[in-house]
Amino acid sequence: MLTIAVDAMGGDHAPKAEVEGAIRAARDLGVKVILVGQQDVVRRELEVQDGTGSLPIEIVHASERVTMEDGAAKAFRLKRDSSLRIASRLVRDGVAQGFVSAGNTGAVMATAKIVQGVVPGVERPALVGILPTAEGTPVVLVDVGANVDCTPRMLGQFAVMAEIYSRNILHRPNPRVGLLSIGEEEHKGNELTHAATPVFKSLNLNFVGNVEGSDIYAGNVDVVVCDGFVGNVALKVSEGLGDMVKHFLGEALESSISGKIGYAIAKTAFATFKKRLDYSEYGGAPLLGVRGACIICHGRSNANAIKNAIRVAAEFSGGKINQRIEDELRGAVRKAGD
Amino acid sequence: MLTIAVDAMGGDHAPKAEVEGAIRAARDLGVKVILVGQQDVVRRELEVQDGTGSLPIEIVHASERVTMEDGAAKAFRLKRDSSLRIASRLVRDGVAQGFVSAGNTGAVMATAKIVQGVVPGVERPALVGILPTAEGTPVVLVDVGANVDCTPRMLGQFAVMAEIYSRNILHRPNPRVGLLSIGEEEHKGNELTHAATPVFKSLNLNFVGNVEGSDIYAGNVDVVVCDGFVGNVALKVSEGLGDMVKHFLGEALESSISGKIGYAIAKTAFATFKKRLDYSEYGGAPLLGVRGACIICHGRSNANAIKNAIRVAAEFSGGKINQRIEDELRGAVRKAGD
Repeated sequence: MLTIAVDAMGGDHAPKAEVEGAIRAARDLGVKVILVGQQDVVRRELEVQDGTGSLPIEIVHASERVTMEDGAAKAFRLKRDSSLRIASRLVRDGVAQGFVSAGNTGAVMATAKIVQGVVPGVERPALVGILPTAEGTPVVLVDVGANVDCTPRMLGQFAVMAEIYSRNILHRPNPRVGLLSIGEEEHKGNELTHAATPVFKSLNLNFVGNVEGSDIYAGNVDVVVCDGFVGNVALKVSEGLGDMVKHFLGEALESSISGKIGYAIAKTAFATFKKRLDYSEYGGAPLLGVRGACIICHGRSNANAIKNAIRVAAEFSGGKINQRIEDELRGAVRKAGD
Repeated sequence: MLTIAVDAMGGDHAPKAEVEGAIRAARDLGVKVILVGQQDVVRRELEVQDGTGSLPIEIVHASERVTMEDGAAKAFRLKRDSSLRIASRLVRDGVAQGFVSAGNTGAVMATAKIVQGVVPGVERPALVGILPTAEGTPVVLVDVGANVDCTPRMLGQFAVMAEIYSRNILHRPNPRVGLLSIGEEEHKGNELTHAATPVFKSLNLNFVGNVEGSDIYAGNVDVVVCDGFVGNVALKVSEGLGDMVKHFLGEALESSISGKIGYAIAKTAFATFKKRLDYSEYGGAPLLGVRGACIICHGRSNANAIKNAIRVAAEFSGGKINQRIEDELRGAVRKAGD
């Protein structure tokens, strides 16, 4: 049975969301879950739920917790007994095959990279965002914030890793890989995209060339590659615009009697709509390129998001994603050296 | 009377949208409009409308037209008699105080820069995007695609120009200026933002530090500065997400009988909502830093968008924006040289 460690103290709703997510995963997915956190707090949360005694859930104590305000480097240096550090150690030591955290993204990335180490051939782990598209298929955006200043070669590695993820975890057949730029034509872009184009062409990818920001949500590409600064801006612009649309729509609907009635009637439709935009279905953002598996969830994650992240961590391990990445990058190096 | 030249052959709906926009501007704003394009086509479109004979509208013939497929450099080299080139020349020669085009953005930028020249002290003109926020106030995003690889000093100039625009055209009091990055803390960001921070601090700006992608639409900042690659991605991601939301919402509402009824009733509310998101109210994107004024509209612009762009071009000139930019940049240089 695969074992996934969960940082029980990470998210905004910790440990409630983490514990409930763990229960659902252990019950529905046939996965063993190790909840890492303050023992008494986690146990109390677990005991609130009925019939959890027989589930494959274990608690491992951690006396410290990294907050959202902690700097990544400082958290790593000073909080050696934090729940996320211990969860990562469980993966390093082979006790768990992957770990899930809804905590401080910077601290989780730094910890996973240093404690678990990187997959052979990977220069830098990359954080992935999984987004919905108008076609109903998921698109992988990489990197969304792990590496701000990238070399063309790093972008090529991100592409290889994300392609494998799209193919094996999201089950996209022959994923179309695009380089995020400001126009479809090859000559459009900046120094980095110009230098990255020949690298992408040399790789074993279904490379469709440059794509624009508007293509991310269009469903005409499965993997969109950029440096972590651009990807982070793209992701957060989306969050901000989504929040504004929700705000305006609610306001517009509440501002009139007919709007109120319309709103009441259209409620089911809105629920369907919201579900399609619900990122939590995709189970968080994997940090690609670290040994084991590391899935980072949004701080706001609910139990369903945590459960799905545990599922992804298990699939990641079961699908031998890291072995595939290692093999592909070794092949890429050999090819480039021909 | 201020005179604004309009590239009548630029947009997807040319010359209809351009001519109707010109009529509305000439009628409502007290501005003289010169329509530049194929004389017979433009005249025919003008004569379709009643009572335009007495309006201050003139036609200047241009035998060529730049298409969306033309490369910017090639269009400039080969189409010397294009409508946009002639419109730009009218500004250079002082016949018009500004020009408006809904044509090929790259070609418009290149032409305005070369034909009209740049404001003294400006290294590179910058393209501005004006976006709505949850607070109902407009936010200026700069640069959205004119300059992909920028120096910290260029970002500082963009900030100065956009601040003046926000203050004088959008009437924001003491505009808050933010540097687009991937976290609020000063140490977060890439090489460019790190190097730009001291430049921004040295300028005469209400600098609020780093802002994130999600802040663009939040209404807590009035001017957001980034290089043109990042800004273009941010703008197009917004367009793509907006299209997807519209698609999903329509689909969800049509998928059920109650949804259909809800939709019918909520229609007014949706219209209000759409109006709040309607970029055309802000009248296109100014290219800041060129002599005269150059307002670039979306290819999809309707007559209302064209009219508003003409209004902005006139306000730009009336507000002496370029003089203010020149003065401010001269002051900035003096300050930096102290």
